[in-house]
Amino acid sequence: MDEKQNLTEKRKTEHIDIALNKEVQSRNVTTGFERYSFKHNALPEINFRDIDLSTAFMKKGRRTPFLISSMTGGTERAYQINRRLAMAAEKMGWAMGLGSMRAAVENEGVAYTFNIRKYAPTVPIIANLGAVQFNYGYGTKECLRAVEIAEADALVLHLNSMQEAFQPEGDTNFSELLPKIEEVAASLPVPVGVKEVGMGIDGETAKKLREAGIQFLDVAGAGGTSWIQVEKYRSKNKMREQAAEAFQQWGLSTADALIEVRKETAFENIIASGGMKNGVDAAKALVLGADVVGFGRSLLPAAADQDEVAIISKLEQIEFELRAAMFGIGAGTISDLKATNRLLKIEN
Amino acid sequence: MDEKQNLTEKRKTEHIDIALNKEVQSRNVTTGFERYSFKHNALPEINFRDIDLSTAFMKKGRRTPFLISSMTGGTERAYQINRRLAMAAEKMGWAMGLGSMRAAVENEGVAYTFNIRKYAPTVPIIANLGAVQFNYGYGTKECLRAVEIAEADALVLHLNSMQEAFQPEGDTNFSELLPKIEEVAASLPVPVGVKEVGMGIDGETAKKLREAGIQFLDVAGAGGTSWIQVEKYRSKNKMREQAAEAFQQWGLSTADALIEVRKETAFENIIASGGMKNGVDAAKALVLGADVVGFGRSLLPAAADQDEVAIISKLEQIEFELRAAMFGIGAGTISDLKATNRLLKIEN
Amino acid sequence: MDEKQNLTEKRKTEHIDIALNKEVQSRNVTTGFERYSFKHNALPEINFRDIDLSTAFMKKGRRTPFLISSMTGGTERAYQINRRLAMAAEKMGWAMGLGSMRAAVENEGVAYTFNIRKYAPTVPIIANLGAVQFNYGYGTKECLRAVEIAEADALVLHLNSMQEAFQPEGDTNFSELLPKIEEVAASLPVPVGVKEVGMGIDGETAKKLREAGIQFLDVAGAGGTSWIQVEKYRSKNKMREQAAEAFQQWGLSTADALIEVRKETAFENIIASGGMKNGVDAAKALVLGADVVGFGRSLLPAAADQDEVAIISKLEQIEFELRAAMFGIGAGTISDLKATNRLLKIEN
Amino acid sequence: MDEKQNLTEKRKTEHIDIALNKEVQSRNVTTGFERYSFKHNALPEINFRDIDLSTAFMKKGRRTPFLISSMTGGTERAYQINRRLAMAAEKMGWAMGLGSMRAAVENEGVAYTFNIRKYAPTVPIIANLGAVQFNYGYGTKECLRAVEIAEADALVLHLNSMQEAFQPEGDTNFSELLPKIEEVAASLPVPVGVKEVGMGIDGETAKKLREAGIQFLDVAGAGGTSWIQVEKYRSKNKMREQAAEAFQQWGLSTADALIEVRKETAFENIIASGGMKNGVDAAKALVLGADVVGFGRSLLPAAADQDEVAIISKLEQIEFELRAAMFGIGAGTISDLKATNRLLKIEN
Ligand SMILES: Cc1cc2nc3c(=O)[nH]c(=O)nc-3n(C[C@H](O)[C@H](O)[C@@H](O)COP(=O)(O)O)c2cc1C
Ligand SMILES: Cc1cc2nc3c(=O)[nH]c(=O)nc-3n(C[C@H](O)[C@H](O)[C@@H](O)COP(=O)(O)O)c2cc1C
Ligand SMILES: Cc1cc2nc3c(=O)[nH]c(=O)nc-3n(C[C@H](O)[C@H](O)[C@@H](O)COP(=O)(O)O)c2cc1C
Ligand SMILES: Cc1cc2nc3c(=O)[nH]c(=O)nc-3n(C[C@H](O)[C@H](O)[C@@H](O)COP(=O)(O)O)c2cc1C
Repeated sequence: MDEKQNLTEKRKTEHIDIALNKEVQSRNVTTGFERYSFKHNALPEINFRDIDLSTAFMKKGRRTPFLISSMTGGTERAYQINRRLAMAAEKMGWAMGLGSMRAAVENEGVAYTFNIRKYAPTVPIIANLGAVQFNYGYGTKECLRAVEIAEADALVLHLNSMQEAFQPEGDTNFSELLPKIEEVAASLPVPVGVKEVGMGIDGETAKKLREAGIQFLDVAGAGGTSWIQVEKYRSKNKMREQAAEAFQQWGLSTADALIEVRKETAFENIIASGGMKNGVDAAKALVLGADVVGFGRSLLPAAADQDEVAIISKLEQIEFELRAAMFGIGAGTISDLKATNRLLKIEN
Repeated sequence: MDEKQNLTEKRKTEHIDIALNKEVQSRNVTTGFERYSFKHNALPEINFRDIDLSTAFMKKGRRTPFLISSMTGGTERAYQINRRLAMAAEKMGWAMGLGSMRAAVENEGVAYTFNIRKYAPTVPIIANLGAVQFNYGYGTKECLRAVEIAEADALVLHLNSMQEAFQPEGDTNFSELLPKIEEVAASLPVPVGVKEVGMGIDGETAKKLREAGIQFLDVAGAGGTSWIQVEKYRSKNKMREQAAEAFQQWGLSTADALIEVRKETAFENIIASGGMKNGVDAAKALVLGADVVGFGRSLLPAAADQDEVAIISKLEQIEFELRAAMFGIGAGTISDLKATNRLLKIEN
Repeated sequence: MDEKQNLTEKRKTEHIDIALNKEVQSRNVTTGFERYSFKHNALPEINFRDIDLSTAFMKKGRRTPFLISSMTGGTERAYQINRRLAMAAEKMGWAMGLGSMRAAVENEGVAYTFNIRKYAPTVPIIANLGAVQFNYGYGTKECLRAVEIAEADALVLHLNSMQEAFQPEGDTNFSELLPKIEEVAASLPVPVGVKEVGMGIDGETAKKLREAGIQFLDVAGAGGTSWIQVEKYRSKNKMREQAAEAFQQWGLSTADALIEVRKETAFENIIASGGMKNGVDAAKALVLGADVVGFGRSLLPAAADQDEVAIISKLEQIEFELRAAMFGIGAGTISDLKATNRLLKIEN
Repeated sequence: MDEKQNLTEKRKTEHIDIALNKEVQSRNVTTGFERYSFKHNALPEINFRDIDLSTAFMKKGRRTPFLISSMTGGTERAYQINRRLAMAAEKMGWAMGLGSMRAAVENEGVAYTFNIRKYAPTVPIIANLGAVQFNYGYGTKECLRAVEIAEADALVLHLNSMQEAFQPEGDTNFSELLPKIEEVAASLPVPVGVKEVGMGIDGETAKKLREAGIQFLDVAGAGGTSWIQVEKYRSKNKMREQAAEAFQQWGLSTADALIEVRKETAFENIIASGGMKNGVDAAKALVLGADVVGFGRSLLPAAADQDEVAIISKLEQIEFELRAAMFGIGAGTISDLKATNRLLKIEN
């Protein structure tokens, strides 16, 4: 293993440790879902047991509108996490995202940490790479390799400018990425999506990405895990550490990003992630325009320190909450939910 | 006593214990009355002693616009509570609601716990059953039986979807209830009403109920006792317990429900209950469209652990507060109060 | 001294003690002045030393736009307070209000406690009686007597419905007072005004009073001393004590009352009192339409436990604050201040 | 040294000590920048390393849009502070303000404390005098002398009415200053600007100053150091000390002042100072209309107790924060930043 790989591995381990043990919740930004509430329907006219969560994602029918967000890979520990998440995803019919696969693309030896297809044979698996790497030598070839390693149904490219800016070793050349993203989207045999990592994608950017041929989008908005906070804990650089304080309010909230993106673009599939706390938040996101809802850090404790049973419990709880919310407003299906007029903006 | 009756009895006892001893106040929803305040009238031009609380309810004149909300029955302890409440209601001229009478309908042996007519010979007594039971074998016959047991002036059917959803043993088939409600309303010799149990009834639902022949409505809105909280304390199921947290903001506030219902429908009698704290809240509810105001849990401590004298003190206090509010704006009668332009929405 | 006088004396003493030592500040209502702020003028173009506070009140020129609010009398201790306040008022050119003079009207023996003309020969002294007494035997004769005792320049009638309602011994017949007020206003040789005691007078009521011939008005709004709180501390009646909690939000704030009254009526003199904390509040009140600003309880500690020097310090501080506020916006005179466009409503 | 010089020196020392050690942050006024937030651009399309902070100030190109605000001089300690600040300013290309130079104009012996040109040969140095001195004998001659002592590129006249009002020895004759300011502006060979010291300059005043020939403006708004607070700590006068409490909400916030001034006037250069906390605040100020952003008290601890290296670190941090904010919205230059539509007012 060379020096660079060593560094990448160290970074991955630190990210998981910090996400598990430190205060990385964004402080002065909320997801925005707390500004909405459902108007209860006292006479729902449905049977709780008949509530149906099935939906379509990437042109196929799916059992649930849920996704385990891209999180990790690249180390043995990350592999164990991915394996457990995959088993739970398969059991529950959730789609499954993988963490950035750069390590595996560059080092055959860790490729196995992303290969969890055997544990999740039937659900969509989404490979993951940083779009900025297109300015550091990456192209279609590396993207194909990532898809291959993961036996993935799709590839998502993440945009993480602020994380890179606050990372000492950051790749911060984000110039002229769009044509390169366009090229990759056109060449790959699987759908290519774009996501943020917790600062949100706004309507204008979504439009550009749509026009560049991107097929799905994860707004990955602010209000949940803050990567500036995460990098603050990793920092040995006092200046960046203090500067992080000034950026506690940075980022477009998940709800606002979702609303903008839905209004501006005609993406077939929009994923909402970033600070999703429970199935009620998920229900709100679905009404506001999401097709699929992603959960990240809230699944990590169970995945890192327990087994797939613990993860499954958590996913069941989220599903129960979504069902209860649908019951509460009388929506028997995801399309009924999306068509409801019972989500109200709370007036101040 | 069979197994099912045993369970019902246990549930009743737990409900009362939890309502008395646990934090069951809704947390992230308020009644909405705090957003209104009265504009003081420095020159009321009335004599405090002449203030007249009399009103009409169910086509008859009544001494006060107040109701003791449906709460209990089915056990000896519940009987004692009902008896004391009935004595106080009679003394003060308040209407009196009974808790769900399913236990009595199914078990002759506990029927006496709802029969408090002898203690309240002159005030309206309201029998109570869950509307959802119409999907579990109930119909006109059972409704008639409940009215008979209670020697009631009216029957109110409660809608409690969220409580059932969070109750392990919950009856959660709420499909196609409306035609069954309509049938019962048409067949019964007494007025039939519908109420929620703390999540509120909105305008749209109220309209449907009105069209189905329902004669009075209790909005039973959010901001007071939260049944999701109550069931959380009863839960042995960890998932439902945690899910309850996600629903802390659920429910249409009593004030909002009242405003919607009054605007959308022409019910002769609308009852406002749910988190009513005092006579000033009651005054606000009356201005916003209620004809009668119901108090539930705030009467329980006196009813459960003390005697009718303690309950009467509490009712007197509420009446004094209503009178003082009417004095403060110069309204000498309930109709003057309802016609006032002195209730203002607090601007933020 | 008969029983009734004894009671009155006891009440007076309790009022002062409670106002000095208990938490009688209104809790859920503020004066409303905190919603306004002055826009600083960096280039005031005036000399601080030339700032002129003189104004007109009751058709005469006065040195300051300030009033010591009606507070006490009827006991030896109250006399000492009145005497010290009068000395300070004279020194600083403030108008001086007296507390309710019913005790003196009914008992020659305590008349001296209101006769402080010798200590304040040149400032306006305002006699005080409760308007509600007109329903308990009072009329022009008693009013004349009060003016005579105080050698007063004016008489103010207070409206205190809520205080009476929460007072065990309260006089709560406020019916048909207006014609009686009109009669008194027409018969008295001095100007007759009306004031509240901390709940505020609104525009509609002000209009009626104006039409009844009332010559000046003290809005005496909410946000300062709450008389319901004061009576709560005096109460031996548990019901009234608890009911007081329900009225913590009662009352029209001083700022709102002022704005309404100024808009609705053409009173020559409007006094703003109720929770005035300092000269900046006074400046805001003057811009919002007051001609004179009254301070009550904030002067009491100095008046009750210290000497006139302490009171004078307090009055000087208030005047300095008013001057500093005028300097800060570049207003050299009270009329400049009243004409400023530099008072802004704080947007939320 | 005569008595008056002694006093001036004592005041200077106290100002620095109080600013360093006491709670002088304004309490009930904020800068207003917290009401704005940037909308993140997930695809910035720029290279972090290419971000260019250069700008124009006083008709010349400058490396950064930053200024060290006028703070001190007149004592040996102040000289050391000025020297270190100058060294840091030179290193980083920040403009450099000096504290009030009245002491130097009146006493040759302390002139050296403002002469830091040798440490900052290439950056703009701004001399400083109080405009109110024009009513106490000052004129063009004294202004020329200040410029000469400092070898300054410009002179800024400060307006500090509230500070003078709360200062026992205050010069509070602010009448008819405008024509005198006009005269000086016309006679001086360098650009003449005007600034407040923390209460803000509004649009109307800015217009007058512009018409009087003033060439640049520093709004020096409220939300940062409060001079009323500073003078409160110096006060031996209890009345002024207590009066200071009443003025905690005084002053036009830096953001509001900036917006007004930019809208009302066509100043070539507007400086925003007053409570600037970091480079994100600076970015907001630049979008809202500032050309240069000034930092005062936040630089003082490093300047007073450490060396120029510590100051440079602080300036670097501020620059990093500005760059990161520009990166986050995809603005590569100061003019791109000023033209962004990504600064949003936070809705309540
Ligand atoms: C520990 C952790 C690691 C993550 N790693 C990646 C990653 O490698 N690639 C990526 O695209 N997003 C990554 N994310 C971001 C999530 O995929 C997702 O965008 C984010 O919105 C999840 O928000 P939440 O943690 O608040 O639920 C990571 C998130 C967490 C918590
Ligand atoms: C202990 C308790 C038991 C209750 N039981 C019933 C019931 O059996 N049937 C029913 O319709 N409502 C029931 N309710 C709800 C009340 O009738 C009413 O709808 C509710 O709004 C009272 O609100 P409050 O407790 O906040 O005053 C119960 C309420 C409480 C507090
Ligand atoms: C101790 C005390 C006694 C008072 N007594 C009277 C009174 O006898 N008659 C009256 O008209 N107002 C009375 N007031 C009310 C004041 O005159 C004035 O209306 C009120 O607005 C003062 O408000 P503040 O105490 O918040 O400054 C009294 C106020 C206080 C604090
Ligand atoms: C310790 C200190 C001394 C100051 N002295 C002066 C001064 O002599 N002349 C002047 O124009 N402004 C002076 N100021 C005000 C600043 O130049 C600037 O106007 C103010 O907005 C800085 O705000 P901040 O301290 O909140 O960053 C001083 C500020 C501080 C903190």
